[in-house]
Amino acid sequence: MKTDRIYLDYAATTPLDPEVLAVMCEVGTTIFGNPSSIHAEGRVARTIIEESRKSICKVLNASLNELFFTSCGTEAHNTILTGAVRDLGVRRIISSPLEHHCILHTLEYLRSHDRIEVVYLPVNAFGQPSQEAIQAELARDPEIKKMVSLMHVNNEIGVQIDLLEIGRLCRDHQVLFHSDTVQGIGFDRYDLQHLPVDFMAGSAHKFFGPKGIGFMFIRNDHRLHPLLYGGSQERNMRSGTENIMGIAGMAKALELAHSNQDSRIAHLQAIRSRLKGELLALDPDISINGDLPGQTSPKILSVNVPRDARTELLLMNLDIAGVSASGGSACSSGVESASHVLAHLPIDPDQTTVRFSFSHHTTDQEIDRVIDIMDSLMRRKVV
Amino acid sequence: MKTDRIYLDYAATTPLDPEVLAVMCEVGTTIFGNPSSIHAEGRVARTIIEESRKSICKVLNASLNELFFTSCGTEAHNTILTGAVRDLGVRRIISSPLEHHCILHTLEYLRSHDRIEVVYLPVNAFGQPSQEAIQAELARDPEIKKMVSLMHVNNEIGVQIDLLEIGRLCRDHQVLFHSDTVQGIGFDRYDLQHLPVDFMAGSAHKFFGPKGIGFMFIRNDHRLHPLLYGGSQERNMRSGTENIMGIAGMAKALELAHSNQDSRIAHLQAIRSRLKGELLALDPDISINGDLPGQTSPKILSVNVPRDARTELLLMNLDIAGVSASGGSACSSGVESASHVLAHLPIDPDQTTVRFSFSHHTTDQEIDRVIDIMDSLMRRKVV
Repeated sequence: MKTDRIYLDYAATTPLDPEVLAVMCEVGTTIFGNPSSIHAEGRVARTIIEESRKSICKVLNASLNELFFTSCGTEAHNTILTGAVRDLGVRRIISSPLEHHCILHTLEYLRSHDRIEVVYLPVNAFGQPSQEAIQAELARDPEIKKMVSLMHVNNEIGVQIDLLEIGRLCRDHQVLFHSDTVQGIGFDRYDLQHLPVDFMAGSAHKFFGPKGIGFMFIRNDHRLHPLLYGGSQERNMRSGTENIMGIAGMAKALELAHSNQDSRIAHLQAIRSRLKGELLALDPDISINGDLPGQTSPKILSVNVPRDARTELLLMNLDIAGVSASGGSACSSGVESASHVLAHLPIDPDQTTVRFSFSHHTTDQEIDRVIDIMDSLMRRKVV
Repeated sequence: MKTDRIYLDYAATTPLDPEVLAVMCEVGTTIFGNPSSIHAEGRVARTIIEESRKSICKVLNASLNELFFTSCGTEAHNTILTGAVRDLGVRRIISSPLEHHCILHTLEYLRSHDRIEVVYLPVNAFGQPSQEAIQAELARDPEIKKMVSLMHVNNEIGVQIDLLEIGRLCRDHQVLFHSDTVQGIGFDRYDLQHLPVDFMAGSAHKFFGPKGIGFMFIRNDHRLHPLLYGGSQERNMRSGTENIMGIAGMAKALELAHSNQDSRIAHLQAIRSRLKGELLALDPDISINGDLPGQTSPKILSVNVPRDARTELLLMNLDIAGVSASGGSACSSGVESASHVLAHLPIDPDQTTVRFSFSHHTTDQEIDRVIDIMDSLMRRKVV
């Protein structure tokens, strides 16, 4: 997978781990039955799915009946948000303007189509929702059925919320708690028997698994209708013939992420710290978004640099120099457009922002090279 | 993929073609960018998707902007039916009680949630909707915006409708026409520049492609909202990071199905004819469902056999004898339950039904062996 290019956009997507690909190709070669079929080929396929579910539930300390496979994180979140409104009677959703579009656009749809209220919390200078505002919203209008929807790790700037603390507050006020954990799954530990979260989701391609497969966690006592109607697969929570190769690949990827988590995190912390330190040394006008010790994901570094003729097209110039980074989220129309996340942060309008995101594959040499390239781009030197 | 077992459940799902798997593993090894990213890795991934779209559109003679990738046929049909109601103002859907559950259950949801009317057409003895009833429904209440939703090939009994004729009738009455073509794609020719169908869908795992990927065709002049909100992928018709391996695999599978179509169909016809003839010769009380010359898919043979102590558990006994067949659709909870399709056909209640479905992999030797096993099961002989 290594080329001469330097890929620093792991928050957008990750390459398949070769062990994951091996599992997928093995399944694709040997297993093909429809898991709903009652004959031998069907039963073998069913076993792959249920073994994968067990493996993922073990990592998350969740019950087998709380985990449902979906085609991606987006589908999981759409199902959860829509179900909370239509089946659990939620009439007000408390969220943040810095959520991923799969949350924000679904909330706007539910506001217009299902007439729910959506409250967007004010955020602090690091992009975290105001703790006071959360408390006030939880207490306001106790007769209205509410849900909080806040992402664990912001995909553009890496800042995190305290799931345990906010979950406890929600429980205290009998408010449902949904968290977009797509950037956290495979990097953080989630103990779902003890974490007071009602709903969350994961997407395999964020943790070196395949694209096109994800899962949703729905706590046992919540009964939602599916978003997709049909053959009643996934105990009627998600119709459609199961993506066996994807499911097996996702389970393998999460198993690998879990067993290598400590070393991967240590490596990410060292890499992030190195790039951050060197960039800040490069130019005193460089700043970092969402950077709170212990509250920021080590895989993401969001950097503001002074805008001039060359940094104006920084991403393009990085790309030409062989470095893949991002302006923010990759999940958009493909056009580089202004980030809704950055718009809520106190960023100097004369600065341009680049997101570097890392993995256990990222090397010190790659970081050194990126520093050289950034130096040259900012100082107009020839590299 | 060949074992000692005889798999005759290809309408439930098909094994991956080795060439398809090779393409998928190649993509999984070499391509990993997020297709929405603007850097080099993203652009390469985008190219795979757009080349796949071109390949599929070429087979179907559709425009590139009419084809959208989804995670499965079920998702495609849910999106189309829901969009037709919410965005195109459809208030009455004319369908058949023999549709797949992904149609029927979505229609029931739209009836209860969106208050549409659903009319289920009466069917003839072969399972085809009555032509007179269609005409009457098309003409009734011209002020109500209507859509016809009828499957092309019935998945349980193989009987087909005449898409061209029904499409023309719908056009004449300015009624939208949606067809579940999941069992037909990869086996029949669809020329979408000339076939008067507004919406249809395909699922790769029905034509030797991967599970977890499908597509929907939405004719150019129809503007629907997506079912999944988020990053606005697929020109805002389907959010969620694209399943690149699956998309590339589906395109390859359809290309292979298309280029080998004539020989595959000829083989299916010979296989079906052989099994049908030998079964009918076995016992005069055996009958075939939905069997109309030229109007039944050659890949499906739905057989009624007299019920007795051994045929009561025919599927289980076939499975024990090494033959995988089906009672009807595989897409259910995994429990062998009464078929909603067969319930509408004039089948003797003292008969039990088994669906055999074939592929180009099915051999004469397999058919001969199945005849022997059926003979033994029905006559209580030892095989």
